[in-house]
Amino acid sequence: MDPRVREHAGVIAEHSVDLGAGDNVVIAAHPVASELAVALHEVCGDVGANPVYLSGDDRASRAYLRASEGEFETPDHQRALTEAADVFVFVRANENVTETSDVDPAINADYSRAQQPIRKERLSKRWCLTGFPAPANAQLAGMSTEGYENFVWDAVNKDWEAQREHQERMVDLLDPADEVRIRSGEETELTMSVAGNRTINDYGEKNLPGGEVFTAPVRESVEGSVHFDKPLYRQGREITDVRLEFEDGRVTAHSAAKNEDVLTEVLETDEGARYLGELGIGMNREIDRFTYNMLFDEKMGDTVHMAVGMAYDECVGEGNAVNESATHVDMIVDMAEDSVLEVDGEVVQRDGTFVFEDGFE
Amino acid sequence: MDPRVREHAGVIAEHSVDLGAGDNVVIAAHPVASELAVALHEVCGDVGANPVYLSGDDRASRAYLRASEGEFETPDHQRALTEAADVFVFVRANENVTETSDVDPAINADYSRAQQPIRKERLSKRWCLTGFPAPANAQLAGMSTEGYENFVWDAVNKDWEAQREHQERMVDLLDPADEVRIRSGEETELTMSVAGNRTINDYGEKNLPGGEVFTAPVRESVEGSVHFDKPLYRQGREITDVRLEFEDGRVTAHSAAKNEDVLTEVLETDEGARYLGELGIGMNREIDRFTYNMLFDEKMGDTVHMAVGMAYDECVGEGNAVNESATHVDMIVDMAEDSVLEVDGEVVQRDGTFVFEDGFE
Repeated sequence: MDPRVREHAGVIAEHSVDLGAGDNVVIAAHPVASELAVALHEVCGDVGANPVYLSGDDRASRAYLRASEGEFETPDHQRALTEAADVFVFVRANENVTETSDVDPAINADYSRAQQPIRKERLSKRWCLTGFPAPANAQLAGMSTEGYENFVWDAVNKDWEAQREHQERMVDLLDPADEVRIRSGEETELTMSVAGNRTINDYGEKNLPGGEVFTAPVRESVEGSVHFDKPLYRQGREITDVRLEFEDGRVTAHSAAKNEDVLTEVLETDEGARYLGELGIGMNREIDRFTYNMLFDEKMGDTVHMAVGMAYDECVGEGNAVNESATHVDMIVDMAEDSVLEVDGEVVQRDGTFVFEDGFE
Repeated sequence: MDPRVREHAGVIAEHSVDLGAGDNVVIAAHPVASELAVALHEVCGDVGANPVYLSGDDRASRAYLRASEGEFETPDHQRALTEAADVFVFVRANENVTETSDVDPAINADYSRAQQPIRKERLSKRWCLTGFPAPANAQLAGMSTEGYENFVWDAVNKDWEAQREHQERMVDLLDPADEVRIRSGEETELTMSVAGNRTINDYGEKNLPGGEVFTAPVRESVEGSVHFDKPLYRQGREITDVRLEFEDGRVTAHSAAKNEDVLTEVLETDEGARYLGELGIGMNREIDRFTYNMLFDEKMGDTVHMAVGMAYDECVGEGNAVNESATHVDMIVDMAEDSVLEVDGEVVQRDGTFVFEDGFE
């Protein structure tokens, strides 16, 4: 086993979820990520935690969803497992990133709704979402498997305290702020209020790699247009060039160059899916290229991302509404060129460089 | 996918566990058996059952057990999942049948004790234990992978009603009986009472393949010596030539030619591990060779098997004690030659042929 796999498991256990004796752990991983799952089981044995190992094989979920007619329950046994667990570790990896591409998006949205109480319960526990460098994920990134392994483990096995300090400067700007304005290219001109909401410093705890600061927009405050110029993968399909228009916080028009129907299903999941639940600002300079993996892409230093759907409770201040939804889909704006991020009228990032970084003009 | 995989999943769902709408199902399978897991998920979708998919990767459990110091709990989350589930399907298959061979048997026995409440709970639900023809299992049998696939699917995808009828003749002899006597070769001479206990006809429900009738000995009634001339695999180790001596039902002496220490740990799991919990008589003529896989070997027509440890509640009649134990280990006596099975003084099988079969002398 590559020693970096054990290092990765160690970062998850010690830094991300603070694993301890007696913790009831759920580990979910695709079989291609079995080495990391093995290393996590080893750590569980070391500290006296109790693992339950769920298979993340999406061939099985595809088969289930394709055979289903779309009347889904929230299964009692899955709920019971979730409620009684203390810690969740989800390892994302694929044998084929388009495995679920022939599942009906409407069925998928139905399933997502039925799973919402389980997702909500999980968010109230200690959890970590991470990735494993499988060949199919390397392929999506257009990289060799070994090159992609280096990329992933460089991003994951790093000094998270230094990263936290770097990001804290952005938290200090955004947390007390009222208005955020995002301008990029000719098509993105968006304003929103974050007044009263909290900005979270993500330094590799719930996401590994971490490397962003994020908050929730005030639900009805988002106004303007945005062009997400980076593609995303959803339900095994690539969605490109998403364009959204907002009025009073609500998506009033949408389009995509490719797989627009999947985007439409996402927005029609429920009423909350038409509102933004998250504004995130990527700050991890180790992630120096797009790999078409949201967990990594959204942490890039030259990007901001917004998610339609569910807001995280921890971001929402007292008195502000929490946007509830069964979905949460992140989308990225590349801020590297012809872009400005303003907080309360002050430019805090221009063309990808933060005001507190060298090279800011 | 080989069409016999979907047929196998269909037999499990329709015949073995009677899967229906709303059933909360737990599917546990090693990744090498993923095709059967996929087919089972498809069936779940078809009928409206809710699957949770556990990974049966024994590299993970090995890593966990080797890192552990042996103070195990019965984890609340695993217990909650088990209690809230209706149906369990366990698919046995290996990537390496000796994967757990370097786990300390004492740690394994500790773990087994902690898992006992969960096993007991599972036995109270609908469940099926089956096998998948993985290359490592073919190798253990000394067969080509394709030859082994034919062997497994011939044994599994068959007319279970005809098998039930064949076996019912043995149930009719054994169920009302008092004493059973087993003689084989020069070393096996064993008597036991089955008075008041029930004989179960196993025709592919809880075990797939099925093909045995089984009951529980009256706990203190077993007397004599037995040489299990077929090897068994336990904790990734081959145990050969097990010899046991019984007085008042209890194992008073034991030996094995190979891995005797693993046998010793099994017998020392708890007091119940020193008593027989099961007497089974193999009756499946499709299984025509030893493949060193207990699920198949114990169903062979020319064998009887006995298990030390836990008795099945369903076998034990009112007023008789149920042998409780955290373990249940089956061992086989080859009855093909120089062997006699007697029930209440009447020979019911000689040299592997039953009294109701052609060729009985």
